Amino acid sequence: MLEFLFSPRCVAILGVSRKQGGVGHDILRNLIDAGYEGDLVPVNPQADETQSLSCYPSLAEYKKNIDLSIIALPSQVVLQAVKNSVEAGAKAIIVVSSGFKEVGDDGATLEKEIAGFCRMHKVRLLGPNCLGVINTENKMNASFAGGMPIAGGISIFSQSGGLCTTLLDLATKRHLGISKLISVGNKADITESDLLHYLAQDKQSKVIVGYLEDIVNGSDFVKSATEASQEKPVIIFKSGVTKAGLRAASSHTGAMAKPDIAYGAAFKRSGVIRADTFDALIDFGAAFSMQPLPRGNRVLIITNAGGAGTMAADAVENAGLQVARLGRNTAMALRQKLPEQSRTGNIVDVLGDGDIEQYVEAINTAQRDPDVDAIIMLFTPCAMTRPADTIRAMAASINGTKPVLAVFMGGEDIIPGRDELGVAGLPDYPTPDRAVAALKAMYDYASWRKMPPRVVTRFPVNRRRVERTISRKIRSNSFQIGEVKSKSILKAYGFQIPEGYLATSVEEAVEIAERIGYPVAMKIVSSDIVHKSDIGGVRLNINNRDEVQDSFDLMTMRIGHKAPDAWIDGFYVEKMVNKGLEVIIGMNRDPQFGPMLMFGLGGIFVESMKDIAFHLAPITLDEALQMLKSTRSYEILQGKRGHEEVDLAAIAIGLQRISQLTTDFPEIIELDINPYIVGEIGVDPVVADARMTLQPLSRQQ
Amino acid sequence: MLEFLFSPRCVAILGVSRKQGGVGHDILRNLIDAGYEGDLVPVNPQADETQSLSCYPSLAEYKKNIDLSIIALPSQVVLQAVKNSVEAGAKAIIVVSSGFKEVGDDGATLEKEIAGFCRMHKVRLLGPNCLGVINTENKMNASFAGGMPIAGGISIFSQSGGLCTTLLDLATKRHLGISKLISVGNKADITESDLLHYLAQDKQSKVIVGYLEDIVNGSDFVKSATEASQEKPVIIFKSGVTKAGLRAASSHTGAMAKPDIAYGAAFKRSGVIRADTFDALIDFGAAFSMQPLPRGNRVLIITNAGGAGTMAADAVENAGLQVARLGRNTAMALRQKLPEQSRTGNIVDVLGDGDIEQYVEAINTAQRDPDVDAIIMLFTPCAMTRPADTIRAMAASINGTKPVLAVFMGGEDIIPGRDELGVAGLPDYPTPDRAVAALKAMYDYASWRKMPPRVVTRFPVNRRRVERTISRKIRSNSFQIGEVKSKSILKAYGFQIPEGYLATSVEEAVEIAERIGYPVAMKIVSSDIVHKSDIGGVRLNINNRDEVQDSFDLMTMRIGHKAPDAWIDGFYVEKMVNKGLEVIIGMNRDPQFGPMLMFGLGGIFVESMKDIAFHLAPITLDEALQMLKSTRSYEILQGKRGHEEVDLAAIAIGLQRISQLTTDFPEIIELDINPYIVGEIGVDPVVADARMTLQPLSRQQ
Repeated sequence: MLEFLFSPRCVAILGVSRKQGGVGHDILRNLIDAGYEGDLVPVNPQADETQSLSCYPSLAEYKKNIDLSIIALPSQVVLQAVKNSVEAGAKAIIVVSSGFKEVGDDGATLEKEIAGFCRMHKVRLLGPNCLGVINTENKMNASFAGGMPIAGGISIFSQSGGLCTTLLDLATKRHLGISKLISVGNKADITESDLLHYLAQDKQSKVIVGYLEDIVNGSDFVKSATEASQEKPVIIFKSGVTKAGLRAASSHTGAMAKPDIAYGAAFKRSGVIRADTFDALIDFGAAFSMQPLPRGNRVLIITNAGGAGTMAADAVENAGLQVARLGRNTAMALRQKLPEQSRTGNIVDVLGDGDIEQYVEAINTAQRDPDVDAIIMLFTPCAMTRPADTIRAMAASINGTKPVLAVFMGGEDIIPGRDELGVAGLPDYPTPDRAVAALKAMYDYASWRKMPPRVVTRFPVNRRRVERTISRKIRSNSFQIGEVKSKSILKAYGFQIPEGYLATSVEEAVEIAERIGYPVAMKIVSSDIVHKSDIGGVRLNINNRDEVQDSFDLMTMRIGHKAPDAWIDGFYVEKMVNKGLEVIIGMNRDPQFGPMLMFGLGGIFVESMKDIAFHLAPITLDEALQMLKSTRSYEILQGKRGHEEVDLAAIAIGLQRISQLTTDFPEIIELDINPYIVGEIGVDPVVADARMTLQPLSRQQ
Repeated sequence: MLEFLFSPRCVAILGVSRKQGGVGHDILRNLIDAGYEGDLVPVNPQADETQSLSCYPSLAEYKKNIDLSIIALPSQVVLQAVKNSVEAGAKAIIVVSSGFKEVGDDGATLEKEIAGFCRMHKVRLLGPNCLGVINTENKMNASFAGGMPIAGGISIFSQSGGLCTTLLDLATKRHLGISKLISVGNKADITESDLLHYLAQDKQSKVIVGYLEDIVNGSDFVKSATEASQEKPVIIFKSGVTKAGLRAASSHTGAMAKPDIAYGAAFKRSGVIRADTFDALIDFGAAFSMQPLPRGNRVLIITNAGGAGTMAADAVENAGLQVARLGRNTAMALRQKLPEQSRTGNIVDVLGDGDIEQYVEAINTAQRDPDVDAIIMLFTPCAMTRPADTIRAMAASINGTKPVLAVFMGGEDIIPGRDELGVAGLPDYPTPDRAVAALKAMYDYASWRKMPPRVVTRFPVNRRRVERTISRKIRSNSFQIGEVKSKSILKAYGFQIPEGYLATSVEEAVEIAERIGYPVAMKIVSSDIVHKSDIGGVRLNINNRDEVQDSFDLMTMRIGHKAPDAWIDGFYVEKMVNKGLEVIIGMNRDPQFGPMLMFGLGGIFVESMKDIAFHLAPITLDEALQMLKSTRSYEILQGKRGHEEVDLAAIAIGLQRISQLTTDFPEIIELDINPYIVGEIGVDPVVADARMTLQPLSRQQ
C-alpha cells in the first residue's frame, strides 16, 4: 500500500494558508515547484484560490477520489481531518502537524486514536510530527524539507526532521542523486521496518540511508533489514548511544532507554552498515551509490603529496585493510611513464607537480593490476596543478571495475575540482581517513554478502520437561530459578551437570556423598535465598563423612542466624567439578531484539576488564566461535601464554544450546552459567553454577 | 636569527625564470601580489627584466646586502648559490629545490654539506625541498604555497608541502586568520623545535598548528614544545603512526621508523594538543584562536532539532565531558521566552521554527548561568529559518566570557550562514562530534595549564657502585646484565631485593640456604644464558637440605646437556619471596625521547591484553600514580573484585626509582623488573627477577 504514499495520482493538502511561511503553504509550493504532474487539491475554508490553484472549502467539495492526503492542521482537528480524508478515498495520509506523542500523554493518546482509525480502514499513515515525503521519480516534493534534489539512487529516511533537511542539503552539495526522502516523525503507523521492506523492492533505490533514534519493533527490524541488505546496502546512523544521549532522545521522542549494544548486535546480524558518525552516512552513501564493491581488501594509494599518502596508509592499516603494492612488472612499466623521483612502491607518488597524464597512467595501471582491489586517489592543491582538468581526465579513465574514491584535501582553491568530481560520479572525501572508512564499509558489506547461508543447529532436547518446570514456577509466582532447578533445565537441553541430589537430613547427605564419591560440594536449596555464598550457604571440597556432618551442622546454624525466615528445602550434595578454565556464558533478553547471548572469561575479565562478547539468538556455530574470537582474552582459550588449550567448540555449542533454550522459552529473561568449567578438547564442559530469571509472557511488552 | 627569515628587509630570489609555472617565477609573483614592501632582487643570468622588475645576472651585481635568499635552482648548483648568498650578506636562506635527502644517499650528502656550510657561517637554512614561508604581518608571501591568507593569530608549520597548501586552503575557507606559514621540508637546519621556540615568543602568533612526520631531536622537542605550550596552545598532527604509514613516511622523507607510543608520551609531557585527525588540526585551531578557554567541563547544548541535540549529548558524554543543565531559576526564566513546546532540560531545544530571538535568549541565559562552562549551538536548516540573519544576531550576543562553538549541519542551503559565522569570529563545525572534540581539547589544555609545577623526586642512591658495575660490563663487551647483577644495581637505587648469595659448590649452597632460612630459590648464574627458566635453570620453593642437594645436581646435569658451552659462575641461592600481586615495571629507551617507563599487571594482562601504560622519564609521583590509574586492570590494584588492596604508592616509587636510574645511566637501554611483587600498604615490594641491556654511549645515536 505504500505506493499511494510515493506515487499518488491525486494529492490533497489540508491546512493551506494563503500567506507564506505556513507549513501547508510551503508544501503546496514545493509540490508545484518540483513539477508534480498529478492532481493537487488544496483545502482551505477561507480561501478561493492559493498559488494560482483553486481552493476547496472542504474535501467533500472535491467530488473525485484522492490517493494521498497531507494534513497540516493544529493537532486538535487532525483526527477529524483524517476521517474526512479516508472518506474522500485517501489510501495514504501524511500528518505533518506536531503536538502528539512528543508533548506528553494527551498527545500520545490522540496519536494512538488516529493510528488506530487508519489501521482499521487499511490506510497507511506517515508521521505525525514529520516533514513529509519526496520522490524524484514522479517529481513529487510532498514535504517542507527544502528544495527538490537531483534524481538518483539513494533513498533516505530520518527520524529527525531537522536532520532530514541536513541530509538532503549535504547530498545536494556532494552531487548525490536521491530517489526517495522520507521524514518518519513519530512513526505511529509507518515504521523503519515498513520502509526497509518497501525500499528493498523499489527498483529506483540502489542504496538506503537512515537516521534512527529508536526502533519500533526489534524482530520486524531484523527481518526487514536482513531482507533489504540482501538486495542493496543499508546504512544507518543511530543516535542516543550514551546515557546523556538517551536522556536527550527520550524526552525528545518518547523513545525508551535501550542499551546501544543490542542495536550493534542487531545491525550486525542484519547486514546493516553502521555509520559511526553522521558524516559517514553521506560518506558511505556516496561510495556505495557511485562505485562497485571491492573484490578484496588491497587498497592502492595514488597521491601527489607524500604526507597525504602516509596519512592514507595509516588509515588503511588502522581500518584492518591492506596497503596494496603494484605487481613487479606493472610497477616497472608505470615508472617509465612517471617523473624520475616519483615512487611506485607501497604508495604511488606522482609528486607535487604530478600532471594529468601521470594520474591517468597511474589509474590505468592500477585498474589493470590484479593485485589491486580498490584505489584511493589523493590530491593536494599545489600552485601548479589544474584541479578541474585533472578530474575530468581522471574520471574519464575510470572503467568501473574497481572502486575508486577521491580525496581532495583543501578548501577554496579546489572547490571547482570538487564539484567536477561529483558531476563525474566519483565520490569525494575531505580527508584520507573518511575515504578509507567508506572503503572499509564496502569491503565489510561485500564480505557479508558472500557469507554462506546461516544454519542454526537444533539439538534434540527434552523440551517438555522444561515446559513443566517453568509453568510450575510461574503458576506459583516464583520467578527466580535457583541452582538446582536451573541445572535440571540445562540438563534437559544437553548440558553436562555434576551428579548431585537433594538431602534433607545429615544421614541422607552422608549417604549421597558416599554414593557419588568424594570430594563433594554442599549447597543450600531455598527459593528464598538467591545469593547463597553470601550467607555461607556453600561448602566446597568436602572429603569425608565427618566433613559432611560438620558442614551440615555449620550451614544449618549459620542460615538459622542470617536468614531465619527462609524456607529451606534441604542441601544439595554434588560431586566436585574437576579443575578447568572458568568462563561465563549467559543470556539477557533485550526488550526489542530478544535474547542477547553473552560470553566472557570468568572473574576479572568480565567484571573489571569488561571483556565480553554479545550476539543475538538464534546463533550459528560459526557465529558462536566468532564471539569467542572477538574477546581480547581469546589467546588464553587458545592455550597460549602458559595456559592449557581448551575446547573452543564445546563452549560454542554451549552458547548454541542456550540460544535454543531461550528462543524456545521467551519466559526466560535472564540466564547465567557462571562458572562454566571448560577443559581440554574432548572433555565436556560442566555447569558449576547457574541461575535464571523468569517473566510471564503477559507482563512482557 | 629567525627574524631574518620572517622579517627580511631585502629578499633575493635565485632561479627566476621569465615564463610562468616555474617555481622561482611563482614565488616572485606571490611576493609582489601580497604587497611585500622590502627590496626584491630577482636573479637570472638570461633576463634583464621579469614581472616588471629588473633582473640581476648574478647576486654579486646587486651591490647592497641582502637579508634573505630564496633558492629555486637545480640541486647540483644549490651549494654554489648558497655560498653566493652568504657572500651577499644573507642571514637566512630558503632552499625550495628538491633532489636532496628524499632521493637517496647522494642527495643526503649534498644536503649535509649545504647545512654544514650555513651553520659554519651562522646563517639559518629552511628546507631544502620546501614551499617557503608566509608572514602576514609584513605582507610577505615568500612561497609557492598559494595565495596570501588573511592576517590573524594562527601560525602553521608543515613537514609536507602538499599539506601545507591544504592547511592554508582550509584555513581560508573557514575565515581563519594566519600569522605565519612555514613549510619545513627536509629540516636540514631549521627544525620544528627551532620554530616552536621562535613562535612561542612571537607576539602575533596566538595558536601554533603543526603537521609532522618525524622529529629531529626528541629532547629539544620536549623542551621547546613545553616552553611554547606554556605560552599558547600547540596543536600537532603526527602521521606515520602505523607500520604501513611508517613505510610510506620513511621512503618519503627518509625518516626513521619510530613507534607512535613514544610520540604520544612526548606530546602529553609537553602539553602539546594532539590532533587525532587531519581535520582536527583546523577544527582545534579555529576554536583556540577564536574563543576563550572553558573554566570547567559542563557543556550546554542549544539546538533547533532534537536529533542533533541527541548526537551532541552522545558526543559530550563520549568525550568525558558533562552535559550541563541550566540552573532551576534560569531555566524557568528562559522557558517563558521560548515557544510552548520548547525544552530547557538537559538540552535547550528552541524547536524547528526557533527564531532569532529565541537563539539569542538562550545564549544570553547560558552566558549568565554559573552552571554552564561552554556552549554548543546546533543549527539544522529548515525551510523557515534565516541562517545569515540568525548568525549575525547570535554573534552579536556573544560576550566572550565562555567558549561558544557553532555547528551548522547541512550543505548548500546554509553556506551563506556559515561564511557569516567565520566573519563574526565564531568557530563553526559540520557535525556535533567535531565541535565537541575541539571543546575537549580546550578543556584538556586548560587543565594542563592549571597543573602545579612538576617536582621530580631524587632519592639518595649509591650511584658510584652502579657506575662501577656498568663500566666493568661495557669494558668487557658484555651488554646483557643478568638477574644477580641487575638486582645489585637495583639495590643500589633503593629497591628491596630478597637476601641471596652465590654458591659455587653443593656445600656452599646448603650453607647459604641454612643461613638465610627456608624456603629458598636456586637460579643458575651465567652470562651466556639469558632465559634461564627455559633451560631448567630455576628451582623454586626448596624446603630443606636434601632438596638443595637434589636441585644442585639436577640443574648441573641438565645445563650440561642443554648448554654445554655456557660458562657457569655458580648458583644463586635466594630467600623465597612472600606471595603478593605480580606486576611488571620497566624501561625501554626510545632513540628520540629517551627512557620510556612501562607499567603493567603481570602475565596475561601485559602479554595478551596489552594493558600497559607508558610515560617518559623523569617522572613525578603524580604521573606515576596516573600511569597505574590509566590501565584497565586498575581495579585489581585497588583491591576490588576479590583481590587484596596493594600499596599503589610503593609501585609508583618503584617507577620513580627506575626513572632516576635510567636518567642517570643512558647506557641502560632496556630494563625489566618482572615480576615486581607488591603486597599490602606498608609492605615493601620486592624485585623477584630483573634484567637489563646496555649499549655503550658511543654506539647510540
